[in-house]
Amino acid sequence: MITMLERVPTGIPGFDELCSGGLLRDRSYLVSGPSGSGKTIFAMQYLVNGIEKYNEPGVFVATEERPQHLREHFLTFGWDLEKYEDENMLAIVDATSTKIGLPSDERYIDVRPFDTRSLLDQIITIQDEIGARRAVVDSTTSIGFTISDPAKFRVELLKISTTMEILGLTSILTCEVVEGGGDKISRFGVENFVVEGTIVLYYTRIENTRVRSIEIFKMRGTNHSSKIHPFEITENGIVVYSKEEVFA
Amino acid sequence: MITMLERVPTGIPGFDELCSGGLLRDRSYLVSGPSGSGKTIFAMQYLVNGIEKYNEPGVFVATEERPQHLREHFLTFGWDLEKYEDENMLAIVDATSTKIGLPSDERYIDVRPFDTRSLLDQIITIQDEIGARRAVVDSTTSIGFTISDPAKFRVELLKISTTMEILGLTSILTCEVVEGGGDKISRFGVENFVVEGTIVLYYTRIENTRVRSIEIFKMRGTNHSSKIHPFEITENGIVVYSKEEVFA
Amino acid sequence: MITMLERVPTGIPGFDELCSGGLLRDRSYLVSGPSGSGKTIFAMQYLVNGIEKYNEPGVFVATEERPQHLREHFLTFGWDLEKYEDENMLAIVDATSTKIGLPSDERYIDVRPFDTRSLLDQIITIQDEIGARRAVVDSTTSIGFTISDPAKFRVELLKISTTMEILGLTSILTCEVVEGGGDKISRFGVENFVVEGTIVLYYTRIENTRVRSIEIFKMRGTNHSSKIHPFEITENGIVVYSKEEVFA
Amino acid sequence: MITMLERVPTGIPGFDELCSGGLLRDRSYLVSGPSGSGKTIFAMQYLVNGIEKYNEPGVFVATEERPQHLREHFLTFGWDLEKYEDENMLAIVDATSTKIGLPSDERYIDVRPFDTRSLLDQIITIQDEIGARRAVVDSTTSIGFTISDPAKFRVELLKISTTMEILGLTSILTCEVVEGGGDKISRFGVENFVVEGTIVLYYTRIENTRVRSIEIFKMRGTNHSSKIHPFEITENGIVVYSKEEVFA
Amino acid sequence: MITMLERVPTGIPGFDELCSGGLLRDRSYLVSGPSGSGKTIFAMQYLVNGIEKYNEPGVFVATEERPQHLREHFLTFGWDLEKYEDENMLAIVDATSTKIGLPSDERYIDVRPFDTRSLLDQIITIQDEIGARRAVVDSTTSIGFTISDPAKFRVELLKISTTMEILGLTSILTCEVVEGGGDKISRFGVENFVVEGTIVLYYTRIENTRVRSIEIFKMRGTNHSSKIHPFEITENGIVVYSKEEVFA
Amino acid sequence: MITMLERVPTGIPGFDELCSGGLLRDRSYLVSGPSGSGKTIFAMQYLVNGIEKYNEPGVFVATEERPQHLREHFLTFGWDLEKYEDENMLAIVDATSTKIGLPSDERYIDVRPFDTRSLLDQIITIQDEIGARRAVVDSTTSIGFTISDPAKFRVELLKISTTMEILGLTSILTCEVVEGGGDKISRFGVENFVVEGTIVLYYTRIENTRVRSIEIFKMRGTNHSSKIHPFEITENGIVVYSKEEVFA
Ligand SMILES: Nc1ncnc2c1ncn2[C@@H]1O[C@H](COP(=O)(O)OP(=O)(O)O)[C@@H](O)[C@H]1O
Ligand SMILES: Nc1ncnc2c1ncn2[C@@H]1O[C@H](COP(=O)(O)OP(=O)(O)O)[C@@H](O)[C@H]1O
Ligand SMILES: Nc1ncnc2c1ncn2[C@@H]1O[C@H](COP(=O)(O)OP(=O)(O)O)[C@@H](O)[C@H]1O
Ligand SMILES: Nc1ncnc2c1ncn2[C@@H]1O[C@H](COP(=O)(O)OP(=O)(O)O)[C@@H](O)[C@H]1O
Ligand SMILES: Nc1ncnc2c1ncn2[C@@H]1O[C@H](COP(=O)(O)OP(=O)(O)O)[C@@H](O)[C@H]1O
Ligand SMILES: Nc1ncnc2c1ncn2[C@@H]1O[C@H](COP(=O)(O)OP(=O)(O)O)[C@@H](O)[C@H]1O
Ligand SMILES: [Mg+2]
Ligand SMILES: [Mg+2]
Ligand SMILES: [Mg+2]
Ligand SMILES: [Mg+2]
Ligand SMILES: [Mg+2]
Ligand SMILES: [Mg+2]
Repeated sequence: MITMLERVPTGIPGFDELCSGGLLRDRSYLVSGPSGSGKTIFAMQYLVNGIEKYNEPGVFVATEERPQHLREHFLTFGWDLEKYEDENMLAIVDATSTKIGLPSDERYIDVRPFDTRSLLDQIITIQDEIGARRAVVDSTTSIGFTISDPAKFRVELLKISTTMEILGLTSILTCEVVEGGGDKISRFGVENFVVEGTIVLYYTRIENTRVRSIEIFKMRGTNHSSKIHPFEITENGIVVYSKEEVFA
Repeated sequence: MITMLERVPTGIPGFDELCSGGLLRDRSYLVSGPSGSGKTIFAMQYLVNGIEKYNEPGVFVATEERPQHLREHFLTFGWDLEKYEDENMLAIVDATSTKIGLPSDERYIDVRPFDTRSLLDQIITIQDEIGARRAVVDSTTSIGFTISDPAKFRVELLKISTTMEILGLTSILTCEVVEGGGDKISRFGVENFVVEGTIVLYYTRIENTRVRSIEIFKMRGTNHSSKIHPFEITENGIVVYSKEEVFA
Repeated sequence: MITMLERVPTGIPGFDELCSGGLLRDRSYLVSGPSGSGKTIFAMQYLVNGIEKYNEPGVFVATEERPQHLREHFLTFGWDLEKYEDENMLAIVDATSTKIGLPSDERYIDVRPFDTRSLLDQIITIQDEIGARRAVVDSTTSIGFTISDPAKFRVELLKISTTMEILGLTSILTCEVVEGGGDKISRFGVENFVVEGTIVLYYTRIENTRVRSIEIFKMRGTNHSSKIHPFEITENGIVVYSKEEVFA
Repeated sequence: MITMLERVPTGIPGFDELCSGGLLRDRSYLVSGPSGSGKTIFAMQYLVNGIEKYNEPGVFVATEERPQHLREHFLTFGWDLEKYEDENMLAIVDATSTKIGLPSDERYIDVRPFDTRSLLDQIITIQDEIGARRAVVDSTTSIGFTISDPAKFRVELLKISTTMEILGLTSILTCEVVEGGGDKISRFGVENFVVEGTIVLYYTRIENTRVRSIEIFKMRGTNHSSKIHPFEITENGIVVYSKEEVFA
Repeated sequence: MITMLERVPTGIPGFDELCSGGLLRDRSYLVSGPSGSGKTIFAMQYLVNGIEKYNEPGVFVATEERPQHLREHFLTFGWDLEKYEDENMLAIVDATSTKIGLPSDERYIDVRPFDTRSLLDQIITIQDEIGARRAVVDSTTSIGFTISDPAKFRVELLKISTTMEILGLTSILTCEVVEGGGDKISRFGVENFVVEGTIVLYYTRIENTRVRSIEIFKMRGTNHSSKIHPFEITENGIVVYSKEEVFA
Repeated sequence: MITMLERVPTGIPGFDELCSGGLLRDRSYLVSGPSGSGKTIFAMQYLVNGIEKYNEPGVFVATEERPQHLREHFLTFGWDLEKYEDENMLAIVDATSTKIGLPSDERYIDVRPFDTRSLLDQIITIQDEIGARRAVVDSTTSIGFTISDPAKFRVELLKISTTMEILGLTSILTCEVVEGGGDKISRFGVENFVVEGTIVLYYTRIENTRVRSIEIFKMRGTNHSSKIHPFEITENGIVVYSKEEVFA
């Protein structure tokens, strides 16, 4: 029985046409890039578009930024996260504050210390409440710091990504690579082993200016662009110039 | 007594003519390359051709992708794995799901934690049932993560490859190397020690575009091309352009 | 409810116009650069301007230089730290002397060995006394040396930065990177994970002369320059040439 | 008393003239190179020529390839190892199969786990039976994997090479270096300390083609070529082009 | 109260004019450079000039060269250390011989094993006897070798430099960096953290000749040259060519 | 009292004029270079010239080559070591054979395992017997392999070099650096800390040919050439072309 693979458009201008229409339903993807390359914006825009354009609720697991900062920062793009949360279209899990022993008055908080099982339980609960179809874990790197052994980290990530696939979530995991380091797609050398595709954000200096660009490095089960395309962070979020190329 | 060494054609367009007709019967080969370079497609196409063109049943040990994803993805090439499985021409061993404690309703599952002996027993059982002549372990890298010591990993791989040779299987082991890293043929520095040949898949950027190419780095007992040839992933799978060369 | 994010101008000539008016209120920033690049001057000038131009008291945690040296050195720029201290506009915490068992007759001293909790208590006390709005920890690198494990160091830094944000302090953490090393934004690979923005000071050789330049590498929640701008250490402190660019 | 040092010609076309007539009698040499560079062929050709041209029996310790594979592969060069073995001119020690617990029906097998003493006893026995003058250990790298400590590995190699010298064997030890790695003459940094000379096989890419070349890096007690010469693997084995040079 | 910072001229021809008149009184400086770059000569010349030109007695802690060798070598520059020692203007602490269990008939010897406390006691005693104003520790690298942990080494150096500052000594610590290594200003990555300034001696090959040059990399509290200047070791010691530059 | 420093000419053609007449009496020097660069020949030629031209007996501690091989190899240069030994002008200490448990019928053998004290006792005994003035330890690298900790290795080398200086021996220690590695003057990063000077032998490829050259990197207490000079290994040993330079 031949089945056409269902697509989940990100809705990010210019991106979906690079990969025949978007991500594959019920798979996990890695979005890698150095600090400041735009990973968090890419991931949140994916959720916001899910809510605004496709009526798909989303979950955002925040391990690096406090939810209140996220809400404030994304208002500059006109994205009213608080409204989405009130409408039960968005759930932000605070996995930052409690990790360091600070109190949090967020609705969803992740207990400490990090424990895959309890994070997944948290997500399952959210599934029950808002019926999410999209998910983001931002970032896997914070989780990696808490697990000393790369092999063990890989297994925990595998549990997270596979469970989310089984829960019917199409998800993005972000990964912060070291600027100028050799490995451009992972931090601990194992992150790409747990996903069906890897999207790389570059933040490179051309002469005296930082330029942003994006590459679909790997996406199983589909044809996709084999080029690097420029993108910008505008006042409405990320815009990918799918017709243009970057020469470095 | 001089015996001509028997050939096992991969059937991959353009490949067999690079090595005087194909792999040598009852030997193991390493297919190395970075993430997304096409290792899994190469390996599966080798099995599918075995079934379709040479009437040789095959075994695929999947340590990275869940069998259901494999089936869905390869349908995009028109390869109906489920049909081959029903006809007892293909066996897929699920060595992914159970590793992380998830249930699997696959026919062949590999118990956890990883154990060479039980994997080999699994393969021997399959041999009895379908009489396979070709085998794939995709990938050795996942196995390597579970074994901390490279020396021990090498011994386990040696057991796997040698046992498969004794069982009359001509096999491909895949190996994921780090993109941009120094070592282009292995991940843990020992994989190439257990095989009779190494095939390298490159996925390099030329100006702004990723280009795929292939090299037969080493193949004992036979003459072979000493050049790097371009290949593409088409809607029918891999096509190697054996008459063309890549200049990088 | 859309809120405009409040700005905290550094008052450093040429800098604030690179980032739409200054730092964001109640956030922490990393100022990275090699030895001698001007991190301590940048940080102190931020506090002195807070006192002189914006009437905001400041705290300076000195882990590398003895307070008396700081007072003497900054007099060469005409900054009379002692006067500010007498006016309760500036508090300098001596976290240098006592660390090595030497007595200190400073007003604020940090007990040994390093302990995040006691440093934060110290800052809270100062908050009560002078009502500081700006803070500097110079440098995180000294603290990092006392904590062997990067993961643990990251958590301690996270506690420091988050507590300061909660206390209503907009703060600068300095970080000394290895001249000529690969990582230009952190020493232990984790410092940038605890801040909302990273400012990099370069101290590079062009032909036979060292040239100073500055880049806003990352600043969440705001647009900013994507270029590298030259700066100088003049007899009045740092001056950034926001209209000029550096080509290296 | 001045003695002329006796020569042991390898008989490999073009090689002996690079080093004033061949190896020095009763010394050990290292043949280093990456995977697939031709080390095993060089070493076996040295033994085969010993048998065919100089009537000197030889011993081949195989730690990587199973003897049966060696016999099959070398038939493609027209070298009938089985015949030499039947004539008591060649002994192949199977140090591969038993290492992984597989049975071996070879005449000479090396017990497991690796133990220098028992390998040397094995060689001494063979000496008694066939009176070998030439020996090969292919490869030292496999042995190195089984000994974790480089210093200890060096001592074990020193025992092997010195014992072989005392037994009147002129021997070749092969060493597999990492392709593209910094050290081109050893894998564990100690192999060259136990030998009287080092021969390096290169397998480098010139534009799009792999080219083979050879250098006598060090040979104590004799003058030798200080150039790099091309060689090929023909249907009769290795041919060195001693009059030509390689420019890379 | 604005105080002009007092200067301690090194008296080395050409050097003091690079830094507005010399070192700052009561501070510690690092002189870094590879083996043979001239660190020991620079440091001793600083002391000899202190004695000859400024009437300031000095202490030289020798951890690498035996005092007798120092006396013999520096006679070639016409510096009669023995005379200065007899006049109580110079004290050389033998921290070399006793470290390896050899007897020393020097006046000042440092007990073994290395212990910061006893070294400082030694210096305090010398202070009492000769009233030194300048000090040299040559080199910190030898001390570093005896302390395995960089963090601990940093603390010990901090004790040494701070105690010397408190004792009214303006001091030079030498540091031997690895020729051709990445870090040009320290060996263990922590030495520059304990000083107020870093002077780098280069010993670089230009075409076929080694050329010596000097850079004031960092000097807190003062303006200084931002260029690299050539210097030579003449028969009268070091001469810096402050008007010339080096282009490499 | 000004004393002219006494010189010990090496007698190697072209070398002594590079350093104002030779080595300094009663000091230790490091001769560094990659495998095959000529270190052993340089060191032995220094001893042979001492015997032949300056009537100074010598000691050679051989940790890498068996004395019998040394005798045979150096006969090719016309140096009859056995004759010198019979005349009590040369003593060769066999520190190779016994290390691996093999018997030695040499006159001077070094017991195992390596122990600095017993090596020095051995040398003191030889001093009594032949009154040596020159000594060689070939190589320190072999000794380094037996001592795991660089800091400890440094102390042992310091004991060896200082004791030899006290015994009135002007000595050469050889050091084998890794071909193509970063550090060109030492293997374990500490060898140059125990000597008064470092002589580097280069063995570099210029186009397709290995070229030998020599540099006096450091020699305390004396002026010396700051250039790199070519040398050759002729049938009479090393000849340095002090008037020529090498451009690489
Ligand atoms: N309103 C804005 N307009 C333009 N650029 C912005 C805006 N907000 C943030 N940015 C840019 O986005 C960057 C942060 O992106 P982010 O997704 O948080 O990066 P990452 O998660 O990869 O570290 C900031 O450093 C800044 O350059
Ligand atoms: N239907 C298709 N058409 C074209 N390219 C495809 C198709 N399916 C997959 N690919 C390409 O193949 C890649 C995956 O190949 P794969 O063999 O899984 O790589 P590897 O196993 O080396 O990681 C994808 O990233 C994509 O670029
Ligand atoms: N008065 C001054 N005039 C000019 N430059 C100065 C003055 N004082 C210090 N500097 C420069 O500033 C440098 C020290 O800056 P600092 O902020 O302490 O560096 P960092 O903290 O990055 O190590 C000195 O090395 C010197 O080059
Ligand atoms: N019959 C043959 N004709 C030409 N080349 C061959 C033949 N047999 C083997 N080769 C080449 O020799 C290589 C193997 O050489 P080998 O000595 O085993 O390498 P190594 O021991 O250095 O790994 C093969 O990869 C192939 O390129
Ligand atoms: N009398 C001299 N004339 C010229 N150069 C000398 C003289 N004495 C020593 N040198 C040079 O000085 C170098 C040693 O300098 P030194 O200060 O000991 O170096 P470092 O302490 O950095 O290792 C010697 O290698 C030599 O090149
Ligand atoms: N008789 C000779 N004629 C020319 N060169 C020789 C002769 N004997 C040895 N050599 C060269 O000297 C090298 C060995 O020098 P050696 O001093 O042992 O090196 P090292 O000790 O640095 O490893 C040999 O590899 C060879 O190139
Ligand atoms: Mg982010
Ligand atoms: Mg794959
Ligand atoms: Mg500072
Ligand atoms: Mg081989
Ligand atoms: Mg010195
Ligand atoms: Mg040698």
